[in-house]
Amino acid sequence: MRRALQLAAAGPWPDPNPRVGCVVVAPDGTVVGEGFHRGAGTPHAEAEALGAAGLAARGATAYVTLEPCSHRGRTGPCADALVEAGVARVVFAQSDPNPDAAGGAERLHAAGLHVTGGVLADEAGALNDRWARTVALGRPLVTWKLATTLDGRSAAADGTSQWITDEVARADVHRLRATRDAVLVGTGTVLADDPRLTVRLPDGSLAPRQPLRAVMGLREVPAGARVDDAAGTVVRLTTRNPGEALDRLWHRGVRDVWLEGGPTLAAAFLRAGLVDDVYAYVAPTLLGAGRAAVDDLGIGTLADARRLELADAAVVGGAVRIHAVAPPSPVTPSATGTATVADTTASTPAPAPAKA
Amino acid sequence: MRRALQLAAAGPWPDPNPRVGCVVVAPDGTVVGEGFHRGAGTPHAEAEALGAAGLAARGATAYVTLEPCSHRGRTGPCADALVEAGVARVVFAQSDPNPDAAGGAERLHAAGLHVTGGVLADEAGALNDRWARTVALGRPLVTWKLATTLDGRSAAADGTSQWITDEVARADVHRLRATRDAVLVGTGTVLADDPRLTVRLPDGSLAPRQPLRAVMGLREVPAGARVDDAAGTVVRLTTRNPGEALDRLWHRGVRDVWLEGGPTLAAAFLRAGLVDDVYAYVAPTLLGAGRAAVDDLGIGTLADARRLELADAAVVGGAVRIHAVAPPSPVTPSATGTATVADTTASTPAPAPAKA
Repeated sequence: MRRALQLAAAGPWPDPNPRVGCVVVAPDGTVVGEGFHRGAGTPHAEAEALGAAGLAARGATAYVTLEPCSHRGRTGPCADALVEAGVARVVFAQSDPNPDAAGGAERLHAAGLHVTGGVLADEAGALNDRWARTVALGRPLVTWKLATTLDGRSAAADGTSQWITDEVARADVHRLRATRDAVLVGTGTVLADDPRLTVRLPDGSLAPRQPLRAVMGLREVPAGARVDDAAGTVVRLTTRNPGEALDRLWHRGVRDVWLEGGPTLAAAFLRAGLVDDVYAYVAPTLLGAGRAAVDDLGIGTLADARRLELADAAVVGGAVRIHAVAPPSPVTPSATGTATVADTTASTPAPAPAKA
Repeated sequence: MRRALQLAAAGPWPDPNPRVGCVVVAPDGTVVGEGFHRGAGTPHAEAEALGAAGLAARGATAYVTLEPCSHRGRTGPCADALVEAGVARVVFAQSDPNPDAAGGAERLHAAGLHVTGGVLADEAGALNDRWARTVALGRPLVTWKLATTLDGRSAAADGTSQWITDEVARADVHRLRATRDAVLVGTGTVLADDPRLTVRLPDGSLAPRQPLRAVMGLREVPAGARVDDAAGTVVRLTTRNPGEALDRLWHRGVRDVWLEGGPTLAAAFLRAGLVDDVYAYVAPTLLGAGRAAVDDLGIGTLADARRLELADAAVVGGAVRIHAVAPPSPVTPSATGTATVADTTASTPAPAPAKA
């Protein structure tokens, strides 16, 4: 199982699918096949390992880091593939939290295989922590990024906001943007800052993988806006409702959203309980006036403050990057209004990679 | 000289006086006396080393980390003591930046001694960095401490502000308070929070050394205010002028002020260019409304923001402590209005230690 976990860790991240590894071991102890999942649209780990094992899979034991799936997405159910290959025993780590894919263990057992679950389940779970959360919530995870002064201002009194942080911090933002499926802003930010929302490498060139760029809100995006350049896919979400915007992104295969909206959009997501992570870049600068980093949250007294947990703090250039995470949300998984996971985990298209 | 620097580092810090070490070496290379300055009111390093050397100082070389003083404070001029002891050669590191005490090298030279300055001067300077700055400015150094949410609020909409940070952060504040000569707040803070301003140890007991507690402003401190308890010395500074308050503290021997005022007092010090260090305890909490950590600074646009330099960031309990320092002040040394140093460096009383 340790080898299977190693293999799983080689899978791509982020990805709408979990990272899974599989090792097939013959009755004499020989490893006859190995595989891991290389991302949405590619074969599952079991299929890869069984393909490598061929006839040697007969009577073998398959070690899998995630309960083999019982559903048909772009690939067939892995449980069936294991049965058909003649595997005698399946040992898996984490049970599948995805209601559409779960039931694999039962299916294997019904087919007469010997099945053991829960082996090194914690380690397997840690590997797919964010994936399990997004599946459980039925919506993309949301990371809000803000740049602020030491006194919590995101713009000066006259509205100037570029740049509160230095180039090093901005490069760090690009690096983190690249780890998400989509970058989301409001039309207000497009109108105010005309951002590109692309991921650029330190040399200024476009990164080969570009997150989907999403703009939400009811206002028009003016012709010639930088966000509409040729560098990648742009989605217009004509809604002001954070839940609705996330739902639409979810159905495009987006599991991880990087929110770079201004104080208004951030407040809307926070009020809806739809912020999971916060990355605050705090510059050692004081303004004493200007726009606060977040608009009214409806909080009147300190006891009701929105308390996050500090995950990490790091010096990034001349600023401090604070990573905080929301405690488990009191908002129900159906916060988006349409939390049914409905066939999306493996079958919806992943965000189109940009032309570099 | 390295040995002298080691000795100097054993001196107390903070203290109104610089840390100085001295080693007296006989012509045959034997160390015949060592000494270091143990704080205001105690013998200077040279006096201690010469006392240890006795008659063996005749013809010897004295290595001193700071140019021997030429002035008479609570102890006589060290330059004269070296001459009287019959020392033949003086090697020193840092020149004395204190205009009242400088001139020692010249005095020694005039008396016929061989004098060499500047040996390991940088290392000696680093040892007394803050002392040199306070002497150059002719006023105490000011460290502003604030506790703020991630969105820069120091109180909620209803005024509640206790506690934004957790116990660990508050213990850290007590530890840092203890390294300063005085803790300063405005009458507004006394009226709003009724703080003790004492340094307490982790077990809640009073630390043996208590900084002077200073309250500035024109409003009355109500009878029974906690700051007036028996735990230490309290000074009332009946002024709203930061420069005037610092000047009065300076003449009491205060060289390092820990400013725990609210947004109004902090803004007054910042506007006057009288903040040298900032310690911001940033809690991973959002309020979306409430009082900002600092009042209006008269800054209208981002280009005019008060930019500090990030010195350090650390996780302290559930918060992040950001230490930032002001770049060399554009404010002249006479910002306090009475910057003449006038005999204070060694002769004014240090803050009275509290009864524990």
